[in-house]
Amino acid sequence: MSDTPLAIGIDFGGTSVKTGVVDGSEVIDHAPPIATPEFEGPEELIDAIARTVEDLRARHPGVKAIGVGMPGFVNFETGTVYNLTNVRGWTNIGLKALLEAKTGLPVTVENDANCMAFAEWKQGAGRGFQHLICMTLGTGVGGAVIANGQLVRGARHGAGEIGQTSIDYQGRPGAYGNLGALEDYVGNNEITASARVAYEAAGDPKGAEQCSPAALAAAANAGDPIALKIWDDVGRMIATAAMNCCWLLNPDAIIIGGGVAKAGKLVFDPITKHLHEQLSGPFKDDLKIVPARFGNEAGIVGAAVLALETAGHPG
Amino acid sequence: MSDTPLAIGIDFGGTSVKTGVVDGSEVIDHAPPIATPEFEGPEELIDAIARTVEDLRARHPGVKAIGVGMPGFVNFETGTVYNLTNVRGWTNIGLKALLEAKTGLPVTVENDANCMAFAEWKQGAGRGFQHLICMTLGTGVGGAVIANGQLVRGARHGAGEIGQTSIDYQGRPGAYGNLGALEDYVGNNEITASARVAYEAAGDPKGAEQCSPAALAAAANAGDPIALKIWDDVGRMIATAAMNCCWLLNPDAIIIGGGVAKAGKLVFDPITKHLHEQLSGPFKDDLKIVPARFGNEAGIVGAAVLALETAGHPG
Repeated sequence: MSDTPLAIGIDFGGTSVKTGVVDGSEVIDHAPPIATPEFEGPEELIDAIARTVEDLRARHPGVKAIGVGMPGFVNFETGTVYNLTNVRGWTNIGLKALLEAKTGLPVTVENDANCMAFAEWKQGAGRGFQHLICMTLGTGVGGAVIANGQLVRGARHGAGEIGQTSIDYQGRPGAYGNLGALEDYVGNNEITASARVAYEAAGDPKGAEQCSPAALAAAANAGDPIALKIWDDVGRMIATAAMNCCWLLNPDAIIIGGGVAKAGKLVFDPITKHLHEQLSGPFKDDLKIVPARFGNEAGIVGAAVLALETAGHPG
Repeated sequence: MSDTPLAIGIDFGGTSVKTGVVDGSEVIDHAPPIATPEFEGPEELIDAIARTVEDLRARHPGVKAIGVGMPGFVNFETGTVYNLTNVRGWTNIGLKALLEAKTGLPVTVENDANCMAFAEWKQGAGRGFQHLICMTLGTGVGGAVIANGQLVRGARHGAGEIGQTSIDYQGRPGAYGNLGALEDYVGNNEITASARVAYEAAGDPKGAEQCSPAALAAAANAGDPIALKIWDDVGRMIATAAMNCCWLLNPDAIIIGGGVAKAGKLVFDPITKHLHEQLSGPFKDDLKIVPARFGNEAGIVGAAVLALETAGHPG
């Protein structure tokens, strides 16, 4: 049993809300996930979350704080959720105040990508660094920035949207009118679409399942030249966005997580190669390009660690 | 006569070293510039700078600190100049220590773009903001980042190189192997080259002088459609790099200075338009896109203000 204070981390997703008790960098107890779409609106869902919290606290009376990672825009200062793209009814919800009233514990509400970055920075691959870029590669591409030993939230709590940065000023139109957004080239579905085009052009058409990032990783590891080329392209495009972060912020490390990062060397090798080819000495000599330590639990751990720190119990 | 402490600001350029006494946001006394190329090496030039400092101090005994803005990589912590691209002999020079020994005053050494940003942030167009992007558009394109109310220097003091960020992952190869660097599209010479190509293609070839940014601004203001198109293109490319900064850092303001910014509305209007088309609400609703307040004196003012703050006399 550790002496560090415990916190509850909540990873709020469009499919499910995952909750766990965190001790240091470990989730020591998981509550059963709550199915997000089963709830009519925020009130009922917050009630269900509060009940889950009470169950966990009954087993872990040492819990000092609650952190919630949200898939959308939040105001960290007030704990208000502005809007969630994939969950109906969540517009201008004072989640911090509501959950504090129901639980009596201090609650911290933060964007999920910032929570993941916090987990990596305080307990994972980014420990000890003052300047970090975190990227999560999946269906969407998210990120977070730590500069001068602080999370950068920006003027309106929007910072870190590396997936929306452009790699081509004349490129594909993205979700917000932004041309050439990285997410529109290296999101899961775009990787699959690019691979299908490449196989079709080679006279060897394949279905979407055969072109998932996992399937493409297996094919590339078996030596398939088309799959290898896809990963090099993906790495090159990720490297461009990462390079822009480097010239702008000169980080100590770039931490890359999410499903696409599971391709391992297939994606890390081209990212590293293209970054080294396109940066000068002070930007690359000591630069670490490393996989995230935490997988699916990054959101829970990060929300909990951030909640403890915000409540005055730094790890 | 103001009661604020005075400082000496030094703007060290490849052509000349400009030195002045700064009171608040004003240069109240200019020393004659020193011609940089006339000196064999750092020692002689530092001696000449020290003599200039002594002349100014004889007239302004209230000077408390000296700030130097350098056109290259410096270590702000140690005051070492790593390397200057355009001035021979300046490799690993401990400028802070040498100039402190000669003058007996605290000396601060900083990159020139960071000095300009500091001037704008503390005394100019960026006053009161916590999150700023500064860009200087000239022969080269430089910049600086302020986040969470602090200048971001990064792991190796290289941060802020917005001119080296890419706007096209398959674009032109730049000075450091980086493809699609903004500077290689909107630097003075590249604007001129693009205009010459456009006029040539239109059957109206023009010389380099007729295609300088100043000449192109005059032509566009007189309604020349080719010149107008050039400025729209330049604005669009600058907007892409600025947009990337916005998604990543969500600044309060983007401050744009340097020679190209003198085109005024011709360049600010397309930058604003293309930025607004490619950002979502929280990134653009309150975003200020403003010209720098300081022109040629930004370097002197910024170096002086930074030196005072570093020496414990914040403005």
